[in-house]
Amino acid sequence: MKRITLLGATGSVGRRTLDLVSTFPDSLSVEGLAARGSNIPLLTELCLRHRPKAVALLEAEAVDALARALPHPRPELLRGPDGLVILAAQTDADVVLSALVGGAGLLPTMAAIQAGRAIALANKETLVMAGSLMTATARARNVPLLPVDSEHSAIFQCLQGHNRSEVRRILLTASGGPFRQLSREALTHVTVADALKHPTWKMGAKITVDSATLMNKGLEIIEARWLFDAAPEQIEVVVHPQSIVHSMVEYLDGSIIAQLGVADMGIPILYALTYPERRPCPAPALNLAEVGQLTFHEPDIGKFPCLALARQALARGGSAPVVLNAGNEVAVAAFLAGRVGFTQIAELIAEVLERFPVKELSSIEDCVAMDRETRRVAEEILRLGKFAGAGVR
Amino acid sequence: MKRITLLGATGSVGRRTLDLVSTFPDSLSVEGLAARGSNIPLLTELCLRHRPKAVALLEAEAVDALARALPHPRPELLRGPDGLVILAAQTDADVVLSALVGGAGLLPTMAAIQAGRAIALANKETLVMAGSLMTATARARNVPLLPVDSEHSAIFQCLQGHNRSEVRRILLTASGGPFRQLSREALTHVTVADALKHPTWKMGAKITVDSATLMNKGLEIIEARWLFDAAPEQIEVVVHPQSIVHSMVEYLDGSIIAQLGVADMGIPILYALTYPERRPCPAPALNLAEVGQLTFHEPDIGKFPCLALARQALARGGSAPVVLNAGNEVAVAAFLAGRVGFTQIAELIAEVLERFPVKELSSIEDCVAMDRETRRVAEEILRLGKFAGAGVR
Repeated sequence: MKRITLLGATGSVGRRTLDLVSTFPDSLSVEGLAARGSNIPLLTELCLRHRPKAVALLEAEAVDALARALPHPRPELLRGPDGLVILAAQTDADVVLSALVGGAGLLPTMAAIQAGRAIALANKETLVMAGSLMTATARARNVPLLPVDSEHSAIFQCLQGHNRSEVRRILLTASGGPFRQLSREALTHVTVADALKHPTWKMGAKITVDSATLMNKGLEIIEARWLFDAAPEQIEVVVHPQSIVHSMVEYLDGSIIAQLGVADMGIPILYALTYPERRPCPAPALNLAEVGQLTFHEPDIGKFPCLALARQALARGGSAPVVLNAGNEVAVAAFLAGRVGFTQIAELIAEVLERFPVKELSSIEDCVAMDRETRRVAEEILRLGKFAGAGVR
Repeated sequence: MKRITLLGATGSVGRRTLDLVSTFPDSLSVEGLAARGSNIPLLTELCLRHRPKAVALLEAEAVDALARALPHPRPELLRGPDGLVILAAQTDADVVLSALVGGAGLLPTMAAIQAGRAIALANKETLVMAGSLMTATARARNVPLLPVDSEHSAIFQCLQGHNRSEVRRILLTASGGPFRQLSREALTHVTVADALKHPTWKMGAKITVDSATLMNKGLEIIEARWLFDAAPEQIEVVVHPQSIVHSMVEYLDGSIIAQLGVADMGIPILYALTYPERRPCPAPALNLAEVGQLTFHEPDIGKFPCLALARQALARGGSAPVVLNAGNEVAVAAFLAGRVGFTQIAELIAEVLERFPVKELSSIEDCVAMDRETRRVAEEILRLGKFAGAGVR
């Protein structure tokens, strides 16, 4: 029996995870649940179904609402960022699945690593913000970081049984998002509704917009750099619109190992939870003859500058990826709120990257402070009205 | 240093192997060479370049010609089928690469296994004829059978680091050969020259014709059944004309692991020779963005009956695969000699399969006798003139 503490219970990865727990009641169970707290009816239902020992919500007042909704005996209820840290570190879980969106997952994930708990990582932003610190701590504590992102799960699977020292390149596949065939000019007219229509994956709003700007792939390059201890120049992106080949590893003999499957997060989530074993995932089988064709092409960096911004931040190192990530979170929120246009997401990120000289970050607290400062500056830039009225509804 | 004894030194796999030995003089060396003996100038050159300790030739009189061509000190020279068996078993090799065409490799390969030598297997006919005996002996002697066929090397690579018990299906890719788009009627007019134009691989005449009839894929199904201890119904064929995905393994969670690369036999040969390590193979890197698209479709069993004949022989078991293989060797030779037409290859095989009731084969000698008897009957059918005049030049 693997006992899971799930950070981000109500998001798309969290809900799929809990469906899998219900499918495999003899091998998976829920120890703790954490969420922002914006969906009390769903949280209530999940608590009744999975009977966690503890629940932590980021929004403190949501805890009271959940307390009122749940019959006795209730799980232990924890509140705020500190509550999440306590839940991640102290519930008696075999694996902590980190699936909060954005930087909110950083402190609790780090606390779980420090407590020696295996991590299933869906929250790429944590590695983008603190990859060096997090992987060093995980190594020191001998804690496995198991990827949940479909691309990184693919890479992880393609590395099994082969020698790490013989890896030549990591080939990250990208769907290319819904706008890969638009001109640069057409990209300036993209609406929020357009950006939320991902061609192959159903996900939350933030990651769907990241997929449309290709920032998602940029963050994944940084994530891969840390998860697989790869040099940035070893990580390449190839656009593959069908999202069937989830990623590949090329070895020095010219052999490429790839992982393929339907676009269903159940497969990588289940692999991370049951590794090194597999379970029959309730997902349709892939029929390649039915799919018929798989296509591949180079990404158009000119049209999707976020990819280059991410590479730049990775090359600069230190605080730059934190600034990239925080700038992106503010920019995407502003786009979703209709405050800036689609192409201005990259412009805002570029502007914050320019504002902050690179400095070394020697603690998680440094990362959090840098994140906060970047958000403040990004918001200030937005308020100063440079991008005012540019939003397209 | 890995010392290699190479059975089939002058064929396409043999020559590529010896090129690789020249490329990696510090890790690979030649212990013994065996060949049919039809190309004395090439054999002379190979002996001078690689300095084998012993050479065995199937054609006894070729040994004298080679003896005259080689300066002293000469390698030990062995002749005839017995000479090959002695070479395979007694030269002090770390690995015996079995790359003779057709049934000629059976006895020496079996002798090498019995002598406890690791086998790199390019000669699929040996496993088709004696898969059960050969794999049982290899298991008993703890001898690894390392696949050299690009498809089986791919499967072998896709199995590394994953649990065998979690394999759901093996997906063998097939180029579909040069005739995959011809109608049934057009297939009856195919010439020898047409059949020798393989779209993606450069190989010997027999295997190139086998690729055109899809018998090659049929033999590979049988080979996979034995190499990977898979149930016949677990092995599926998918046509993939670009020959980039060399084969795949589907696991029970729906995840598919695939091996990709350029169509260059150097990669699987080198992997078999240096396993579990890899060396930088002198082959061009695969650029998927340049390839652009990979396509997949179901094979047309109606147009390519050899695939169904192979499955039938595998299902019947016992002597049936030996009859299939011998019938095919005679039929392909007759086609190459202009004695029968392309579609009659399958007809002749079907006829010999019908003539022989299935019986158990309990020794390699039984296999060899069955092989000989099938060839005799197949030749007799040809002589009786049923297919006379049907050859297309």
